[in-house]
Amino acid sequence: MRSDLAIAQAANKTPILKLAPAKADIPEDALEPFGRYKAKLSLDYIRSLQNRPNGKLILVTAISPTPAGEGKTTTTVGLGDALNHIGKRAMICLREPSLGPVFGMKGGAAGGGMAQVVPMEDINLHFTGDFNAIALANNLLAALIDNHIHHGNKLQFDVRRITWRRVVDLNDRALRQIVVGLGGTANGFPREDHFDIVVASEVMAIFCLVNNLQDLKERLGDIVVGHSLSGKPIRARDLQAQGAMAALLKEALAPNIVQTLENNLALVHGGPFANIAHGCNSVLATSTALKLADYVVTEAGFGADLGAEKFLDIKCRKAGLTPSAVVLVATVRALKYHGGVEVKDVGVENLKALRAGLVNLERHIHNIQHNFGLPCVVAINHRTEDTPAEIALLKSTAAALGVEVVLAEHWAKGGPGAADLAHAVVKLCEQPNHFKFLYEDDASLLEKVGTIAIKTYGADGISCDAKVRAQFAQLEADGYGHLPVCIAKTQYSFSSDAKLRGAPSGHTLVIREVRLAAGAGFVVVVCGDIMTMPGLPVIPAANGIDINENGEITGLS
Amino acid sequence: MRSDLAIAQAANKTPILKLAPAKADIPEDALEPFGRYKAKLSLDYIRSLQNRPNGKLILVTAISPTPAGEGKTTTTVGLGDALNHIGKRAMICLREPSLGPVFGMKGGAAGGGMAQVVPMEDINLHFTGDFNAIALANNLLAALIDNHIHHGNKLQFDVRRITWRRVVDLNDRALRQIVVGLGGTANGFPREDHFDIVVASEVMAIFCLVNNLQDLKERLGDIVVGHSLSGKPIRARDLQAQGAMAALLKEALAPNIVQTLENNLALVHGGPFANIAHGCNSVLATSTALKLADYVVTEAGFGADLGAEKFLDIKCRKAGLTPSAVVLVATVRALKYHGGVEVKDVGVENLKALRAGLVNLERHIHNIQHNFGLPCVVAINHRTEDTPAEIALLKSTAAALGVEVVLAEHWAKGGPGAADLAHAVVKLCEQPNHFKFLYEDDASLLEKVGTIAIKTYGADGISCDAKVRAQFAQLEADGYGHLPVCIAKTQYSFSSDAKLRGAPSGHTLVIREVRLAAGAGFVVVVCGDIMTMPGLPVIPAANGIDINENGEITGLS
Repeated sequence: MRSDLAIAQAANKTPILKLAPAKADIPEDALEPFGRYKAKLSLDYIRSLQNRPNGKLILVTAISPTPAGEGKTTTTVGLGDALNHIGKRAMICLREPSLGPVFGMKGGAAGGGMAQVVPMEDINLHFTGDFNAIALANNLLAALIDNHIHHGNKLQFDVRRITWRRVVDLNDRALRQIVVGLGGTANGFPREDHFDIVVASEVMAIFCLVNNLQDLKERLGDIVVGHSLSGKPIRARDLQAQGAMAALLKEALAPNIVQTLENNLALVHGGPFANIAHGCNSVLATSTALKLADYVVTEAGFGADLGAEKFLDIKCRKAGLTPSAVVLVATVRALKYHGGVEVKDVGVENLKALRAGLVNLERHIHNIQHNFGLPCVVAINHRTEDTPAEIALLKSTAAALGVEVVLAEHWAKGGPGAADLAHAVVKLCEQPNHFKFLYEDDASLLEKVGTIAIKTYGADGISCDAKVRAQFAQLEADGYGHLPVCIAKTQYSFSSDAKLRGAPSGHTLVIREVRLAAGAGFVVVVCGDIMTMPGLPVIPAANGIDINENGEITGLS
Repeated sequence: MRSDLAIAQAANKTPILKLAPAKADIPEDALEPFGRYKAKLSLDYIRSLQNRPNGKLILVTAISPTPAGEGKTTTTVGLGDALNHIGKRAMICLREPSLGPVFGMKGGAAGGGMAQVVPMEDINLHFTGDFNAIALANNLLAALIDNHIHHGNKLQFDVRRITWRRVVDLNDRALRQIVVGLGGTANGFPREDHFDIVVASEVMAIFCLVNNLQDLKERLGDIVVGHSLSGKPIRARDLQAQGAMAALLKEALAPNIVQTLENNLALVHGGPFANIAHGCNSVLATSTALKLADYVVTEAGFGADLGAEKFLDIKCRKAGLTPSAVVLVATVRALKYHGGVEVKDVGVENLKALRAGLVNLERHIHNIQHNFGLPCVVAINHRTEDTPAEIALLKSTAAALGVEVVLAEHWAKGGPGAADLAHAVVKLCEQPNHFKFLYEDDASLLEKVGTIAIKTYGADGISCDAKVRAQFAQLEADGYGHLPVCIAKTQYSFSSDAKLRGAPSGHTLVIREVRLAAGAGFVVVVCGDIMTMPGLPVIPAANGIDINENGEITGLS
């Protein structure tokens, strides 16, 4: 069997300056090429599209993730190809991969099998430099903070209360907790500091939520980087950082356009973390694709409890988007895992485990339909070992909920393999749509968290200590009460206990900590240990990556 | 007077995919575009040029730098334009700017006035992402080191003797000396660490000295990152890092091609520090330009004692290059500063100070002519306040040394302003050339340093303590004795005392420390406090940089 990389390298790619005009009537001068197969869509061109009608927005989300694998990005790409295959003008919107997983364990994020975006190596390595621009903007702000303190600390920073962290786009556990400014007076004032991975930067979240450069600069200025000795918040604007930061991000802000293996267009742009941020590609990419295509297929991070909820309650709310349909991705293997089977055994037929695991899928379906009023379809990312009895059980269970289950074989067959899914999605987009947010802006912050916990996670309620309550009260007093909340908890369970598979209930969501993302415009509610700087495994993927004298890369996955 | 940025933004640029074929017969498919005005020359194409004859190589260097300014990059660009102006096929090779000075004090490095390479904002900000690729390759290696230790430390790293540092392309003094790995067992083992600016990374030096990808990977593998508890050197190869590092650098390794304000071609590629590294653009760019043009104008960092010496003894030695002529850049202001006048007074005619300061120029001329056997010309980067008497004194002094002095007005007038210089250089290239290195490979390391100190710096000799002597002996025992030496000392004086202007003699070069750059292939000899992570000033340039809603950047200099 060919590797994803081998398939991608054999792709018959069309130069992007030819493809984009042919497929989406994008004029050549709206494209800034980066090599032959990547380009950026100019912000001027995007502005010119403003008055066009929007296409249909389709969200691809999934059951709670398992080590057995679901294939959300692969399904997003496959569905986009399939829609084009059945004659629709469709475009795909994806997040950009981070180098952390590329060199760590998980691998890249450009799809898999016959459903990939290409050039795979470029997309997974530097792509067009967006993450580097975000890292530099983030780290420039950090350097300006310490430089300000070094040169007299006029703003009276309390060095114990600086919340702005430096970032790097690598898994590097040694940088999680550090002390900077050592070595004497020439090197500034010592203080505790931390590095996060780039996708965890608030600059990334802001980048993915803005509409234009002006908006970007404003929000960068709004970032709260720490507090003064008298407890006053200090913002990036107080350091006159936002102009240089926005200048660094100018080029990056233009969405990237590439193609699938089947020469259909995909916008791949931005990639905020799905725990402490909202986990989906940029608003600019999504809203642009909606002007250029009749169907836009996009995905959100993790399972539907986190990814879809944030996509709908944060991104759609802020960008004024209304999805037309939701695709819930599952695999038979993963459902059996949710039913209690261990990974090594998920390849064996097990109807009892499948039935037990289906509760996870059922709750996600319920949430999409009832919490958000959206039509949905279940896509089973098909594997050869799935048995007819298992598929039958899946179909009958979903039918009882009034939801169609479609087998999708895009991984093996590309777009044609997901034609049934495409037809189902087109039909779904014509169904009545009663999209609503899970909570209104004017609910209190605690009410918002409570609503999510009870309605989405199946919790009995929430709990937090007096300190956290006081933080919520302070945020509301400071005028941040209207913001949406962004819950950071484990992605592996509806609860905050990663080990509780299926659809746990009766649990309590314990809020440990609250963080304001004033620039991004949401309040992060931390429920559990959230890792914002991953580590590398015993044998990092980096060890297996190589390049030969002809520039051919091997070992990327 | 228009700012450099305003001049650059008003440039009448030609799309690079049109310009490169028109000016240098570069086929369009040899170019990987990055936007409309930047491209990379494919490595395949570069390989195909191998058997072409070389053009003439012209090195632009300068007197010892002063706060009054000399304008080396500006002269390099102006001379390139002037050679084209007088009908020669000429190309320019420059280093890429670092963001440290851009956001700090010095500003960018794309030339000035009417002698600039464009697009200025892009070149000074991210350009084509090369520095980011270098930073990531450097930092991946660092992460692999700490990860290896965390997961059992099979190689038995002595955490006190890890010499590999992390890097960022910003001035950030708080990162000069840090402690990483704090916070308990999950975060690895605590140890002292340091960040350097990207241009100080050995990856940068290697990048600028290799001929192809294979060479790059080999040399990356050779990097010594630290020592084991038993004192054995540990290399990047021992961590299986070189394949992934080279994959990260694949795209970056292809030289960048841009244009001057006068639509002449320039290769801008790589930019190692001129103190702990060799301070000139990549060998790949220079050797490619020599295949594409009859005249190639390039520059080296700092004054001729450091920059030209390293260009000739390290870069030319390793790449097998022979320069045809050397241009020594000076300003009347800077020479008066060397003669003892303070910066605020250098605008006033002062023949006595000029005469006193000319000793600096004279020694540099002597070094070029006698140490290296190369013909040279002095270019006076002309300013309106220079008086006829001052110019006459300059000319007569140089004439006595058999060297022509040419006034160059490229800053105000572009290429036509430096036509005299261009003619002088063309003539110089026809003169007999007795190029020789300052020392031979088989001299001992200490002899090499001594030769440079005495012959170039005018020192009486060198001194070092027993520890340094033992280090030299160990390096020779380990098989590194044949390497060239790379002296890291202040650029402001021939001596290692920054305050000694002019042409001091009788001093002793004190060697403080020796570092092996096993991948780059030289031995760094540290003579003084060498800053590898600068800091930001009280009012960083970043504070004045802005961008408006149309994407127009202001405040870059």
